[in-house]
Amino acid sequence: MPEHPPTEMAYAGWGDPARRTGLPEHARTWLRRELGPLLPASASAAAVSAQAATGLPPSRLPESARTALVSVVGAGHLRVDDDSRIRHAAGRSYLDLVRLRAAEVEGPDAVVLPGSAQEVAAVLRACAEEGVAVVPFGGGTSVVGGVAPLRGRFPAVVSLDLRRLDRVLAVDEMSLLARLQPGLRGPEAEAQLGALGLTLGHFPQSYEHATVGGYAATRSAGQASTGYGRFDELVVGAVLQTPAGELRLGRGAASAAGPDLLAFALGSEGVLGVLTELTVKVRRRGTGHRYEGVFFRSWEQGCAALRALAQEGVAPDVTRLSDPDETRLQLALSGGGAKARVGRALLAARGYRPGCLAVLGWDGDPAAVGPRRAAVRSVVRRHAGLSVGRSVGERWARGRYDGPYLRDDLLDAGVLVETLETSATWSRLDATWAAVRAAVAGALPRAVVMCHVSHLYPQGASLYFTVLARQDRADPVGQWQRAKQAASAALVATGATITHHHAVGVDHRPWMTGEVGALGVEVLRAVKDVLDPVGVLNPGKLIP
Amino acid sequence: MPEHPPTEMAYAGWGDPARRTGLPEHARTWLRRELGPLLPASASAAAVSAQAATGLPPSRLPESARTALVSVVGAGHLRVDDDSRIRHAAGRSYLDLVRLRAAEVEGPDAVVLPGSAQEVAAVLRACAEEGVAVVPFGGGTSVVGGVAPLRGRFPAVVSLDLRRLDRVLAVDEMSLLARLQPGLRGPEAEAQLGALGLTLGHFPQSYEHATVGGYAATRSAGQASTGYGRFDELVVGAVLQTPAGELRLGRGAASAAGPDLLAFALGSEGVLGVLTELTVKVRRRGTGHRYEGVFFRSWEQGCAALRALAQEGVAPDVTRLSDPDETRLQLALSGGGAKARVGRALLAARGYRPGCLAVLGWDGDPAAVGPRRAAVRSVVRRHAGLSVGRSVGERWARGRYDGPYLRDDLLDAGVLVETLETSATWSRLDATWAAVRAAVAGALPRAVVMCHVSHLYPQGASLYFTVLARQDRADPVGQWQRAKQAASAALVATGATITHHHAVGVDHRPWMTGEVGALGVEVLRAVKDVLDPVGVLNPGKLIP
Repeated sequence: MPEHPPTEMAYAGWGDPARRTGLPEHARTWLRRELGPLLPASASAAAVSAQAATGLPPSRLPESARTALVSVVGAGHLRVDDDSRIRHAAGRSYLDLVRLRAAEVEGPDAVVLPGSAQEVAAVLRACAEEGVAVVPFGGGTSVVGGVAPLRGRFPAVVSLDLRRLDRVLAVDEMSLLARLQPGLRGPEAEAQLGALGLTLGHFPQSYEHATVGGYAATRSAGQASTGYGRFDELVVGAVLQTPAGELRLGRGAASAAGPDLLAFALGSEGVLGVLTELTVKVRRRGTGHRYEGVFFRSWEQGCAALRALAQEGVAPDVTRLSDPDETRLQLALSGGGAKARVGRALLAARGYRPGCLAVLGWDGDPAAVGPRRAAVRSVVRRHAGLSVGRSVGERWARGRYDGPYLRDDLLDAGVLVETLETSATWSRLDATWAAVRAAVAGALPRAVVMCHVSHLYPQGASLYFTVLARQDRADPVGQWQRAKQAASAALVATGATITHHHAVGVDHRPWMTGEVGALGVEVLRAVKDVLDPVGVLNPGKLIP
Repeated sequence: MPEHPPTEMAYAGWGDPARRTGLPEHARTWLRRELGPLLPASASAAAVSAQAATGLPPSRLPESARTALVSVVGAGHLRVDDDSRIRHAAGRSYLDLVRLRAAEVEGPDAVVLPGSAQEVAAVLRACAEEGVAVVPFGGGTSVVGGVAPLRGRFPAVVSLDLRRLDRVLAVDEMSLLARLQPGLRGPEAEAQLGALGLTLGHFPQSYEHATVGGYAATRSAGQASTGYGRFDELVVGAVLQTPAGELRLGRGAASAAGPDLLAFALGSEGVLGVLTELTVKVRRRGTGHRYEGVFFRSWEQGCAALRALAQEGVAPDVTRLSDPDETRLQLALSGGGAKARVGRALLAARGYRPGCLAVLGWDGDPAAVGPRRAAVRSVVRRHAGLSVGRSVGERWARGRYDGPYLRDDLLDAGVLVETLETSATWSRLDATWAAVRAAVAGALPRAVVMCHVSHLYPQGASLYFTVLARQDRADPVGQWQRAKQAASAALVATGATITHHHAVGVDHRPWMTGEVGALGVEVLRAVKDVLDPVGVLNPGKLIP
């Protein structure tokens, strides 16, 4: 048995390939009708073998750097084999997958696996001295290029894999706080906290693979963020290792001692330092969950209902609303069985077609959930929502982490499939939704652009778009980049944010000046210069 | 009528001297018994006249700077008269009052009153060019030296009074957001928002004078922060003018676009820039309030009840718990009438003496408050709390902004009276409480050190200490500084924060290294160097 059982992803796809189900025939039919004729991929992701496909260039790690790193972590924790390097060569965006499938990735020159915060600090000092770029690596689930092993101006780059720092260090049950190491994955965190009757309540789609360090470094939001809050809201303390030393942040329960420096650790994306410890809020965990489906007659009515739920303080922990196009796809994928056909006909007869499907979910004891559901029902009724029962909600819950598997199947079928996300205030939500749809449609003729709202605030909400199109086999990268460019410009123009929870990485870096202004970028640079004067930390990410 | 009706403070005291009531005889008796014989002040604050008492040195503002500033704001908005200067000479800490009463303050060399964000920006550029220090000034209520007109290494200093920027710029009722100018005071903000059925919900003790810009620059917390949140939690966008340009922060409803730079505007204390616009969350305002008193048998039991309220999510908007010494004072000050005596005797008979008094308060419609109160009653009963009805709560609510007036009366009576505050996690709250009490008692023999909890979080709470002692007439400044030094060292040692809501200013600056570490201080310095390369902004504050 290895020291830390691997939870490795498929080489060029998501997670465990055995969990893929393949596209049912009715889905293929729907895709062909919507997108036009599709050309299946020549080799499926499952067939891609790293060693065979990539022909990695030899490691360029200088001997002196290798010696220095081995002296810190030991020879067993510095890996230069092809398998380790290809597994740290890319995140899991659509473009990552396209490049992995085409064996067009380089991989880092080595993978370093420190075993303690002290070793992380020593690795950073060694890399600064040796002039080797460092890319922190948690679950490897970034969809914005965050873990791409870019060298910047340095001759070599190492991936700093934090999987050995995977412990729950302490739980303060009286203060509902837990001290966690960054390499701890979601399911393991929930298992250990759950044994104490506690939960973190953070369930992003990447949950089965992402790490708590990654959650914090990217300001993640989980599917139940409406109930539990964004991950940056859960973190009250952090230890950040940097080439210039250690930052220990967060004192007391709340503070007015100047600007909150913790805000510089959260969202730092490995560019300002490496998180080696997080102190996070936890909650007492109830027993049970309940998920339900509700139909609204229109996007406007659905959004108004969600706004009322958020502003009246009664929103379910999970609150998602699909727009008409996403609803249409969901109904199509629910299959052609007699029951589904009858259900669709009934919805149409009552004026709910196309309509917008919402999924509402509550965590907790039934006694606590009951009054919360009653408050929601009252709001839903006011907005002419139609409850369609638990089966729709339970189906969503069963498949809540399966989206990335479906994506691999779609790629096999020759489909461009990618997501992008933002947030906007309620008064601008509709304009942002329309602007992004128009921008993507302009760049990708005959694309399906679907959207859902999935994170609510009294002031606004997130918008999560999924784009499907026939892949341009000659230039799949350029094809998506043009659409992304158009969508990003629309976001900046409408006052929305360039990213609500995917972070910046490589992909959003050109838009940071639009997001925080030239002077804001200078502030980020100044902070980086203090913490990482040589500039070895994650070059090419976050800061333009 | 002046363009903006003055809401000037008394020269050497708080607010409107006509609102002072004087100390009743039973209070004087109690003070003499607790603190020993008192020597009343030779001149009461009300008798201190700025012109007569201070003998301000002449303004040192260079002629070129005066010309430059007049060209920005106009001659009518650059003031060098003694009255304007002495009114911007100090905040309202105990030491400020001691120095004001002794005419030991200098005052700024001029007071500048810009009329727009553009004028603020131009003033900052002019001051950077001319080498004149700038001290932003809102309500002038700082109790940590935040508005002290320190010159730093510059020959002159101006106070930048933001009272002319006092507008509600826009209200987005759909998104429950309001754009406010920084010089807007609490009561005016509530009046204008209230006309739309909205409220900010921010009611610090300084409410009648402090400004929203000050709330943001100091990360203020109001008396109802348990219900409405800290002010930094209410701000979702800001415009910060700096000598290097303008920062416009806050896009969408929430963002993951790198570290949250808004966190650098909040708590910036005029050291990193001047806030000229805030976008804040507002809420729909219910009608009515309800305040009640509850007695707990012990500090431990009262704290446990508050912890349960916070962690079960049912805490009242206002939740305050006095420790035995503060409760004892409150009972003493409630007077010697027959009703009060009977009440005290009944409490004693039921085992609630000394006991700890809590005040619980709810804002909102009775229909909404009812279920919330029921949830609280259940928690209170579990912790053996005894409801003592509405009169105690209503009395607190009537006097909620009167503490600073009482302080002036105590100074007249020869009493050292000052507060200090912190926050701690629940598991350390008791240790912090004990450590501060011991530290102050060690430095100030025969002092009364009282405390209340008044801002709750699931993870911990604030502790607000009030210290009473016989003033050392020979060295009142040194007397308090020794106590403050001892208390601050205790806070750093116990892991509590140096300030929960009073901010840093001059007084807490030496403790910032203990709070955020040497590297954290370097980060603050680096950000300041970008935004204020000449260093004219509020020298001597916040950053050590």
